Amino acid sequence: SRLVNYTNISQGAKEHEEAESLHGMGFHGRAASPNMGTLMGVYLPCLQNIFGVILFLRLTWIVGTAGVVQSFLIVLMCCSCTMLTAISMSAIATNGVVPAGGAYFMISRSLGPEFGGAVGLCFYLGTTFAAAMYILGAIEILLKYLVPQAAIFQATDIHVVNGAMLNNMRVYGSLCLGLMAVVVFVGVKYVNRFASLFLACVIVSIVSIYAGAAKSIFHPPEFPICMLGNRTLAWDLFDVCAKTVVTENQTLPSKLRMKFCSSENASSSHCDEYFVQNNVTEIQGIPGLASGIIREYVGDYLEKGQILEKAHLKSVDVHGSMESFGLYVSADMATSFTLLVGIFFPSATGIMAGSNRSGDLKDAQRSIPVGTILAILTTSLVYFSSVVLFGACIEGVVLRDKFGDAVRQNLVVGTLSWPSPWVIVIGSFFSTVGAGLQSLTGAPRLLQAIAKDNIIPFLRVFGHGKANGEPTWALLLTALIAELGILIASLDMVAPILSMFFLMCYLFVNLACAVQTLLRTPNWRPRFKYYHWALSFLGMSMCLALMFISSWYYAIVAMGIAGMIYKYIEYQGAEKEWGDGIRGLSLSAARYSLLRLEAGPPHTKNWRPQVLVLLKLDEDLHVKYPRMLSFASQLKAGKGLTIVGSVIQGNFLDSYGEAQASEQAIKNMMEIERVKGFCQVVVAAKVREGIAHLIQSCGLGGMKHNTVVMGWPYGWRQSEDPRAWKTFINTVRCTTAAHLALMVPKNVSFYPGNHERFADGHIDVWWIVHDGGMLMLLPFLLKQHKVWRKCKMRIFTVAQMDDNSIQMKKDLATFLYQLRLEAEVEMTVVTLMMEQRSQMLRQMRLSTTERNREAQLVKDRHSLVRMESLYSDEEEETLDIVPEKIQMTWTKDKLDAERRTRNNAPENFRELISIKPDQSNVRRMHTAVKLNEVIVNRSHDARLVLLNMPGPPRNPEGDENYMEFLEVLTEGLERVLLVRGGGREVITIYS
Amino acid sequence: SRLVNYTNISQGAKEHEEAESLHGMGFHGRAASPNMGTLMGVYLPCLQNIFGVILFLRLTWIVGTAGVVQSFLIVLMCCSCTMLTAISMSAIATNGVVPAGGAYFMISRSLGPEFGGAVGLCFYLGTTFAAAMYILGAIEILLKYLVPQAAIFQATDIHVVNGAMLNNMRVYGSLCLGLMAVVVFVGVKYVNRFASLFLACVIVSIVSIYAGAAKSIFHPPEFPICMLGNRTLAWDLFDVCAKTVVTENQTLPSKLRMKFCSSENASSSHCDEYFVQNNVTEIQGIPGLASGIIREYVGDYLEKGQILEKAHLKSVDVHGSMESFGLYVSADMATSFTLLVGIFFPSATGIMAGSNRSGDLKDAQRSIPVGTILAILTTSLVYFSSVVLFGACIEGVVLRDKFGDAVRQNLVVGTLSWPSPWVIVIGSFFSTVGAGLQSLTGAPRLLQAIAKDNIIPFLRVFGHGKANGEPTWALLLTALIAELGILIASLDMVAPILSMFFLMCYLFVNLACAVQTLLRTPNWRPRFKYYHWALSFLGMSMCLALMFISSWYYAIVAMGIAGMIYKYIEYQGAEKEWGDGIRGLSLSAARYSLLRLEAGPPHTKNWRPQVLVLLKLDEDLHVKYPRMLSFASQLKAGKGLTIVGSVIQGNFLDSYGEAQASEQAIKNMMEIERVKGFCQVVVAAKVREGIAHLIQSCGLGGMKHNTVVMGWPYGWRQSEDPRAWKTFINTVRCTTAAHLALMVPKNVSFYPGNHERFADGHIDVWWIVHDGGMLMLLPFLLKQHKVWRKCKMRIFTVAQMDDNSIQMKKDLATFLYQLRLEAEVEMTVVTLMMEQRSQMLRQMRLSTTERNREAQLVKDRHSLVRMESLYSDEEEETLDIVPEKIQMTWTKDKLDAERRTRNNAPENFRELISIKPDQSNVRRMHTAVKLNEVIVNRSHDARLVLLNMPGPPRNPEGDENYMEFLEVLTEGLERVLLVRGGGREVITIYS
Repeated sequence: SRLVNYTNISQGAKEHEEAESLHGMGFHGRAASPNMGTLMGVYLPCLQNIFGVILFLRLTWIVGTAGVVQSFLIVLMCCSCTMLTAISMSAIATNGVVPAGGAYFMISRSLGPEFGGAVGLCFYLGTTFAAAMYILGAIEILLKYLVPQAAIFQATDIHVVNGAMLNNMRVYGSLCLGLMAVVVFVGVKYVNRFASLFLACVIVSIVSIYAGAAKSIFHPPEFPICMLGNRTLAWDLFDVCAKTVVTENQTLPSKLRMKFCSSENASSSHCDEYFVQNNVTEIQGIPGLASGIIREYVGDYLEKGQILEKAHLKSVDVHGSMESFGLYVSADMATSFTLLVGIFFPSATGIMAGSNRSGDLKDAQRSIPVGTILAILTTSLVYFSSVVLFGACIEGVVLRDKFGDAVRQNLVVGTLSWPSPWVIVIGSFFSTVGAGLQSLTGAPRLLQAIAKDNIIPFLRVFGHGKANGEPTWALLLTALIAELGILIASLDMVAPILSMFFLMCYLFVNLACAVQTLLRTPNWRPRFKYYHWALSFLGMSMCLALMFISSWYYAIVAMGIAGMIYKYIEYQGAEKEWGDGIRGLSLSAARYSLLRLEAGPPHTKNWRPQVLVLLKLDEDLHVKYPRMLSFASQLKAGKGLTIVGSVIQGNFLDSYGEAQASEQAIKNMMEIERVKGFCQVVVAAKVREGIAHLIQSCGLGGMKHNTVVMGWPYGWRQSEDPRAWKTFINTVRCTTAAHLALMVPKNVSFYPGNHERFADGHIDVWWIVHDGGMLMLLPFLLKQHKVWRKCKMRIFTVAQMDDNSIQMKKDLATFLYQLRLEAEVEMTVVTLMMEQRSQMLRQMRLSTTERNREAQLVKDRHSLVRMESLYSDEEEETLDIVPEKIQMTWTKDKLDAERRTRNNAPENFRELISIKPDQSNVRRMHTAVKLNEVIVNRSHDARLVLLNMPGPPRNPEGDENYMEFLEVLTEGLERVLLVRGGGREVITIYS
Repeated sequence: SRLVNYTNISQGAKEHEEAESLHGMGFHGRAASPNMGTLMGVYLPCLQNIFGVILFLRLTWIVGTAGVVQSFLIVLMCCSCTMLTAISMSAIATNGVVPAGGAYFMISRSLGPEFGGAVGLCFYLGTTFAAAMYILGAIEILLKYLVPQAAIFQATDIHVVNGAMLNNMRVYGSLCLGLMAVVVFVGVKYVNRFASLFLACVIVSIVSIYAGAAKSIFHPPEFPICMLGNRTLAWDLFDVCAKTVVTENQTLPSKLRMKFCSSENASSSHCDEYFVQNNVTEIQGIPGLASGIIREYVGDYLEKGQILEKAHLKSVDVHGSMESFGLYVSADMATSFTLLVGIFFPSATGIMAGSNRSGDLKDAQRSIPVGTILAILTTSLVYFSSVVLFGACIEGVVLRDKFGDAVRQNLVVGTLSWPSPWVIVIGSFFSTVGAGLQSLTGAPRLLQAIAKDNIIPFLRVFGHGKANGEPTWALLLTALIAELGILIASLDMVAPILSMFFLMCYLFVNLACAVQTLLRTPNWRPRFKYYHWALSFLGMSMCLALMFISSWYYAIVAMGIAGMIYKYIEYQGAEKEWGDGIRGLSLSAARYSLLRLEAGPPHTKNWRPQVLVLLKLDEDLHVKYPRMLSFASQLKAGKGLTIVGSVIQGNFLDSYGEAQASEQAIKNMMEIERVKGFCQVVVAAKVREGIAHLIQSCGLGGMKHNTVVMGWPYGWRQSEDPRAWKTFINTVRCTTAAHLALMVPKNVSFYPGNHERFADGHIDVWWIVHDGGMLMLLPFLLKQHKVWRKCKMRIFTVAQMDDNSIQMKKDLATFLYQLRLEAEVEMTVVTLMMEQRSQMLRQMRLSTTERNREAQLVKDRHSLVRMESLYSDEEEETLDIVPEKIQMTWTKDKLDAERRTRNNAPENFRELISIKPDQSNVRRMHTAVKLNEVIVNRSHDARLVLLNMPGPPRNPEGDENYMEFLEVLTEGLERVLLVRGGGREVITIYS
């Protein structure tokens, strides 16, 4: 009596819908109070959803083909897969208030919209194909067992019997689908009202099987089968299973004989040879439980068209004529273990039915796990026992006979049932029709729910419904997709398809559970305690394995579809208020990568610029020089790290809002300039302090900047306030102290935007001091970007009058070749007064005895180091510029050797250079003017000039001179990039 | 003549070794000057390494089995795979100075030691099994074609003929391996000297095939085969291919007849029935190029034991007797397309031979790509043409006859060759022996090189060698592993094994190239320009596909082995100065994850504490309270973000070293306390400024802290200097301004270490103000850690005298149930004087009409909000504490409804509370004393007491009172954790 209340809109979209409208309309009470118990609310719906058409139409055939043991294995695999999924699902469903409605809501709310959408659509497609499968099953029952005479297409030839049947299925299936769609469209109410009837049909059918099996111990049902030799005959076109019949004491050829012989006379010359040489026997089709046939029965995978044979029956193996082939029962398709797995799996799906109705449950957190798991146990038990009973009661050839041709076209499982085969035929027909209707009701609602979530824009139209909320368009789409399934026409072909989609969905349920457990999200606190990530992982692996076992190409297609939906949703950038569990994964990934990066400083060959761009903001919090960002984005060509930092003068307690606003402004500008990176605005009492802090503390773990990009303090000469250039020099000092490289683009407003393209021209490097290779690497990096791609690189180096400039040029060219950089090398001779030069040179050449192939290159660098003295006024500065450590690629010895060579040089310098500060200043200015002259002369038409930036004076009194020196050095050049190395090698000839 | 200089130590360990010793001993000149050209240095070695035993022993059989078209496909797949790999390899090899020596050095230097080690060992195993394969091939030639009479084991029964052969192979193979090992051990020099001889053998053999094919146009060689019906007879035990022979005009039964008949008399009754019913015919085995048999020939995959049949020959299909089975030529194993791929692939390996000797090349960067690619083109061409020639010249049954039984046990390819089959038999024997010797020379050297790199500790012993540098132990291990291959005894079984290892290695070469290209490492600048990441990716996919095609279980085993080696090296923590390309991957991953995380603030359900721990250092730069770190590690149970920050007072320009030192000290302490996270030390002029900066700028992108953990300023009352507690209060203010949560563990020294375990006890939460759930979540998080696991959570809440405390308790219990937290709920009634209380309560109850199921919970929180007034002296403070935004899970409407409810409350407060500051102070102290009394009373034995931390006064004058208030509140409690929410919800009832 309680069953009358039982309804079943599967996939629970209904509840969700109700919940939606409830909340939307302001909480005025629920339509139905949540008062369902475990039995009515979870157990029975699950049971009905799990049992399906496969049990009635295919399980006997599976047992016959695979044998009892392997069938057991198939059932075990499928059921343990769903059981593990149910455990994961229980954990998810009991983790707080569950959004009503199935896998889609569970996954989308716990793993985020991307996974949710992919899984939801998989589930939708699975349900839709399930509808097609149920309809095909119903039509198969109708045409094969209920009213075979209704078939429109009749086989004209024995070879096309299969094709005719398929066409019948297509026609009737389409009609049936149309009818069902109309029913669903007109009255979902009625569908729900009949739910309990459909459930009753299933239960009655199953009970009748058990009853039949029990009865078969004492009175096996009478289903004889007719064998010719060891071959099974299709018992439909003859009446008596004998070669001759005795009528009125006269021996006449039987109908059977007439089928096999072309003439009616007694001689066997016109008969099929196999018919002649073998005897006709009649054996019992259902020997019954007591017969013990289970002991002798093993499965037999048949090829398409292979005739069903009973192994131990005596036969003479002669080729018969082809014409008589149609008289035997033969396999309609090739079978294999993996194929059977795919066909059976739909019998194990449907486990979500309970969790879909969480809204209606009194105590969802208890009912869902208990009900679902009990339902799976029940159904598994039924399957296992059915496998054994079928194997124990029914003769092998009958089992393998998919359409019951050998038993006068009875449903095979029907032959076993009690009191009559019709119980099962009619029961299974109605339950199948019911399941089809329910799938057809559930699928559009699920689609509507997904569409309403608006994560997949092109589905939006399916979110609308009729006035009564009926999803008209969604129903139409569902019917169209189901029609595709029906056009396939074969139950055995459709079943693996829906298996795929359901497995995909279960896979993600398991994944969601495993991921959340492993990530230890604080919010992951399921009431259901008997889960474990290993179980979920096992479940996930089983789903994956089953997918690939049952059909690897379907599996790949299904995964491809899911992947495409995922990417599409990601691309559409669904911003949902649900939050996603994947965030934890990103967090873990980021943390892991950062910790991994932190392990040590990168090897020279992995060096890449990680840039901290110091931006100035104007009073309205706008970026003052947006070209700084363009330059940064051109420099790194989209890869590596960029942090954009800025300082706001003020008190943090008051300026939080201002800081947020500027951060937003910078982020907007970064988006415009296509800089992918991070933004960091700090509030500090003094700007220079803020910058010092940014330089110290930007970045995290291994993701720290190694290069600072800073603007030039334009108009420092005019400014009354010395703070502007004091801040500049202080920043230069800070970068030096922090061992960072520094780049100062001068006249940054003239720098090209990201959309300009230089069609020709040069990037000129004035390589005066060896700075670890920064100057060499930068043009290469810039040339990766479209703006600079067509520019050519030139390297200028400065020689003294008596240097062997030809040899120097050759050495440098070799060095560049080994660096795999394409550049012209140019030598410029500058005459400078310098007293110790010759002495120094001599000293340098002493150390050349220790050279070797690699050291040759070092020499080149050392010959350049000589120029450094021009650039710094104190010997320590020189030391700063010489790279501290050059990492070699393969042996320590080489490194040591090189170090030895290098360490000599600075000592020499220390002895040699002892210039007084004032002297130095004068000479430095002189140098700057001379150099500037040469640079302007040679590089006036260059697109960009790269210059070494000398270190600031140690003594703050020299600051103004220093600024002046830089101005003089760069005068008359359009775009200059001053570069100061960070004291470590950034480029290497080694791979 | 130039060929005399040709040597070939494959896998180039030799060069590497030389380079090693050279650099190690101080650069005194090279043993051989690098002067080899493309031909001698790359092309010929590659050619010799690629051509191999499979060409001579198996290619005919492959063509026979798979047919010309499919064989073409097999060759195409293998060759295009190696061609793509060669392109990737060329790019890697021309990216700067190449470390001499093969895949191992290329991969380990570009992808890092983990990948390098895994690939190196794969390559080593591949080479070792190649040695085994060559030896098996040599023995097969020896025993089958050269001296068949040398076989020790003779088949006693026709069914064990295969077994006997395998045993012969095992015995002779082991002997041969021993001999070769001795040769290698004694004199590598001689092996090298004969390299040109071996190469000549290969070339002569191949030329003889072409010559033979050309000759076959006019004079096909005479190799008749004898057919019985359509079955091929093994022509070894009879002489004449006829049923009878006519000798001296007498017709006698032939030897053949005697084989098939048990008696010699003429009647056929004792003869094999198949023999009786079919005719004996003799057909031409090598019809020659002009015969056009290529048109009619398709392959035929045979089952094991299937007799080779010629399709169009007339035959009567009768079962013959089993005894005569051995007289036919039958397949010795089952074949399939995929199997043949695995067997053929070793013919395409060997492409690394050129790059191995980069040290000897005049211009490695040009020679390697050109030579390698030309060699692959040449060999591919030979393979393709051979496939066609074999198919065009040789009869199908002969092709399918693996051991040439049908052609009197001649080598099948030998039958085609000109001038004599012996050319190929002897040529292939020597070339195979040579290849075996070379593999046996190369493999130990490679192992030695890997061992010397010392990335795999247990291999260390193999790094040592004899006095002359010969790797004795490595040779021994190699011989042992090769012996394993020989015990397998079948060429067809060993070939797929080595295919796996080589494919694995090629896969990684392609991967290395693709990864470096995609990551745009600045150092990735190959001179060889014709690479593309898509090609490398395709190559990688092909390698993977070939692995799984040829044998999916071997593939899994090989990948398992490689994975294990990878993990082992990673576990051993190889610190190499090479740097790894994977670093770029980590960087990209980190950047991607961080950018992804940045997208928006996390949803409540993804909230997890991301902690910034502010540490104090003492004068010696030691961590003052290490228990702060223990607490942090217990809190997050290993997941989430932890940043440990500290401030050093000083000037950054001077204190860089000090900052580094303290960072190291903190990192050490973090390691001890097992805190996985990051460390950030800043130098600032004032500590409070430094802290403010840390709070502002720690973290990166989405990985920012949301919670600050700070110590209590112990002894602030005693201290003369008010800065200590001023800094404390300032930090509290900063966290509030930055909307961060704050935790202050008081008496942190009493907190448990990570190794203590509380066996019982309680964590008590005094839930006075609703703080977004922090207080609820923290005990749950702590309980995840072993230290606190056994503690129970109790929640105390404070009610007024006339509150309905029973209802409140019940509501709270429901709330906790829905939060899925297990806790006891306790109510405490505190009597407080408060004039507006009753009025307020009335106001509160008015708003209850708007409630619903969800709002019920909100009510509970509001009933708690009443207490807030006790906690703050200004109404704005109250507002700060009320969570700004509660994110609901599924609809906006609900959110709005809740907001509506909430927004009413503060207004009420604003009207109601109008207490004067001084009044407030007195009352606050009173409250504190009262509360403290209750707390100490109830929680004196708790393991930890969690308390809301009130906000600091807005007016700095009240600072001292505030500190006093906190002291009073927490007096007499052992471990207190003061908690202040960050103004946003951190826990939710929704899943």
